[in-house]
Amino acid sequence: MSTTNSQYRLGMIGLGTMGRNLLLNMADKGFAVTGYDKDPKMLAKLEEEGKEHQLKGFADLESFVGSLRTPRTLVLLVPAGQIVDNVIQELKPLLSEGDIIIDSGNSYFTDTTRRVEELAKDGLHFFGMGISGGEEGARFGPSMMPGGDKKAYAEVREILEAVAAKVGNDACVTYIGPGASGHFVKMTHNGIEYAIMQLLAETYQVLKHGFGYDNKQINETFANWNKGPLQSFLVEITAEIFLFKDDKTGNDLVDMIKDEARSKGTGKWTSEIAMDLQLPVPIINEAVSNRDLSKYKSLRSTLAERYPEHSSSKSSISPEQLEQAFYFAVATAYAQGMHLLWQASRQYEYELDLAEIAKIWRGGCIIRAAFLEDIYQAYQRDGGLEHLFLDPQIAGKISAASPALRQLIADAAMSGMALPAYSSALTYFDTIRTARMPSNLIQAQRDFFGAHTFERIDSEGTFHANWNNL
Amino acid sequence: MSTTNSQYRLGMIGLGTMGRNLLLNMADKGFAVTGYDKDPKMLAKLEEEGKEHQLKGFADLESFVGSLRTPRTLVLLVPAGQIVDNVIQELKPLLSEGDIIIDSGNSYFTDTTRRVEELAKDGLHFFGMGISGGEEGARFGPSMMPGGDKKAYAEVREILEAVAAKVGNDACVTYIGPGASGHFVKMTHNGIEYAIMQLLAETYQVLKHGFGYDNKQINETFANWNKGPLQSFLVEITAEIFLFKDDKTGNDLVDMIKDEARSKGTGKWTSEIAMDLQLPVPIINEAVSNRDLSKYKSLRSTLAERYPEHSSSKSSISPEQLEQAFYFAVATAYAQGMHLLWQASRQYEYELDLAEIAKIWRGGCIIRAAFLEDIYQAYQRDGGLEHLFLDPQIAGKISAASPALRQLIADAAMSGMALPAYSSALTYFDTIRTARMPSNLIQAQRDFFGAHTFERIDSEGTFHANWNNL
Repeated sequence: MSTTNSQYRLGMIGLGTMGRNLLLNMADKGFAVTGYDKDPKMLAKLEEEGKEHQLKGFADLESFVGSLRTPRTLVLLVPAGQIVDNVIQELKPLLSEGDIIIDSGNSYFTDTTRRVEELAKDGLHFFGMGISGGEEGARFGPSMMPGGDKKAYAEVREILEAVAAKVGNDACVTYIGPGASGHFVKMTHNGIEYAIMQLLAETYQVLKHGFGYDNKQINETFANWNKGPLQSFLVEITAEIFLFKDDKTGNDLVDMIKDEARSKGTGKWTSEIAMDLQLPVPIINEAVSNRDLSKYKSLRSTLAERYPEHSSSKSSISPEQLEQAFYFAVATAYAQGMHLLWQASRQYEYELDLAEIAKIWRGGCIIRAAFLEDIYQAYQRDGGLEHLFLDPQIAGKISAASPALRQLIADAAMSGMALPAYSSALTYFDTIRTARMPSNLIQAQRDFFGAHTFERIDSEGTFHANWNNL
Repeated sequence: MSTTNSQYRLGMIGLGTMGRNLLLNMADKGFAVTGYDKDPKMLAKLEEEGKEHQLKGFADLESFVGSLRTPRTLVLLVPAGQIVDNVIQELKPLLSEGDIIIDSGNSYFTDTTRRVEELAKDGLHFFGMGISGGEEGARFGPSMMPGGDKKAYAEVREILEAVAAKVGNDACVTYIGPGASGHFVKMTHNGIEYAIMQLLAETYQVLKHGFGYDNKQINETFANWNKGPLQSFLVEITAEIFLFKDDKTGNDLVDMIKDEARSKGTGKWTSEIAMDLQLPVPIINEAVSNRDLSKYKSLRSTLAERYPEHSSSKSSISPEQLEQAFYFAVATAYAQGMHLLWQASRQYEYELDLAEIAKIWRGGCIIRAAFLEDIYQAYQRDGGLEHLFLDPQIAGKISAASPALRQLIADAAMSGMALPAYSSALTYFDTIRTARMPSNLIQAQRDFFGAHTFERIDSEGTFHANWNNL
């Protein structure tokens, strides 16, 4: 390799759409960067799209690594799982102490924890960095969640801040914390995303069947919401979806799409780890369950015939009340996600700055929304806030919105419309504001049949009763 | 070791309450059995309680194994986890081909799969056998769910059938299937148990706050339910709990118990594996979430002050309607559990006989209930039934019960009472009987921001739209 070549600032491994777009984004900002991919087609695409930039592609890993200035910075945008480990094994002999590998895929956070620890033994810095914003985001400004060694972050901070989305002067990237915190935060982002998407789907159901709206009216409703406190990327694209025509039939495309939702697993991961952490995120659970239920299409069709009761009924609430109910449910979804981060931060010693996380989610990412400004401010007021519902300003807003949600749920229950995520938002709220839950009965039952003991309200310790001796 | 000693039929490892009781149960039935425990106190207890039986205890593993006739049958009742592996490692050098090890703890089923495969290499048969019924059940008749090698089951069938609970002439034990199927089925049993216990706790909430009942009236309600179609062990003990007096204060003990529910994780396992299998069990999810939420006591107390709205309100339904709503929700919890078994059987090739499983759950176990007779009959009518709601007889009963549940949920939503498991039962029912879900919108969103493609209702394949080009 020539010495002149060893001056590139950063190398990207994996030149699929996400990797290529992020690299082009970096080149746009004036950084000299290189890319590596085994696939010559991907290299050709990179050189084609990046011909006006200082952009070089390599098919040979050794030359690619040699092109980078030290300490080297390598960004991986390859599929999560075994491939990440394979790439690391290939790279390791070519790297030197202090080099930085940034895994920007959706790796499961415990894999990242393991890789951080393994590579630290060789003096290498491994970062898990969640990226959100899809292909467009990668190209023109994503939200990025890098976690890893704090000192090493200084090496990459400039370039990440340059390519990140901006909200005013604030770049949508920040040092998240040590270990796998970056991937944990991105996973939680996706869990919230699942919840909001499910709430939007249920809102669509209410507008269509409860209000009898056509697609044009549904579009107008969401477009209108997007001008107010509910302004967000997901509401915006949902509005647009209802205008899109199908080339083939001339119908609205949304009506031609099968009602079987797919998933890549990040929502499920969020639900599962939340269960492990004993930190409930029931709206996310419902979002996961309902994507899965959507796949039982033939069962649903048969059961629809067997149980035709309440097959359609009008909603008694106004569009403004529906907007309030949606506000309440979305706020609750964010609150559950932030609560999970609060708990994970304690459990894994991530020392997360929840204000900073809300701040970088305000732009670039899929869940960007005006409401994140409220969340940001809440955690600025109190960085250790255990739960968003404790914040006085948010409390005022959700208290004002809750009557609308109550009426929505009551109508849906009576009319037979399924609103699982909305219902879950309400029961979560009503549970978490219950000072005395009926769980004393569960403890009594457990002690009755399994001698699992119970605690008392009037003294410390655990107790067992001989329940059979009445 | 003497040859005369090598005639014991079965050996128990772990002589805590469960192991000792099960061994005493076997001795009661005339089987010559032995026990092993490192703890001399446990041995002393066994000899004390079992002195009228052919019951021998060992503190030395080699003598203990030597006491058993071949092929040897060893039952493990030790805590799940590493201890099981440790015991296996100690045992292995002492065993011969064809010997049988039965793990009767609540091991996680993937651990059991691994152990079955590892021990098969040495010609040893490893069984995972869930046992339900608590200490009483172990002593006088549990429900048992053994999974493993079918031929080896013939060796232990006689003794298991002798000690199992009986319903009429039917023993509450059957060969479940290969591999870890026994532990999977027991885990699912516990998931259903979590759901029913949460539903009972919510029913208590309605009786206390919605109806204004005192503990005596609550006792009478459950005792009354226990005489009809809702007859079950859990309803029975719940009724009794409300009569039990606290020695210390003279109050009803249930009122002196803290409302923070504990758990040993089997409910969480059920929810997590159901998510992995993409087979939703949302009532179980809510039961897990609510045990966890109950632990956030100080947060709940603070939020109760911040959100005092709707703090108490009467329910408009009758006690008979509440009974119907409970029937509906419990039926749905069983349906979700059975659906999970149906899916697991396909996924893991367990070849489960769902009729047989319902049959052995009718007695001995914690979820034993009159309703299991209905489930048993449903699967007898159609062994391949995908979902309980498809059975005509069950369909008739839940259709009759659903209006009561609708009113219960509507009242709770308006009054601010948290009924998460009941609500989840209703939204699950209303979802799974929806022929066209709004999940087409989710697919449109995923394709919009992530190019994840979608399927169409009018042609095969996957498609992508350029959503930005409106």
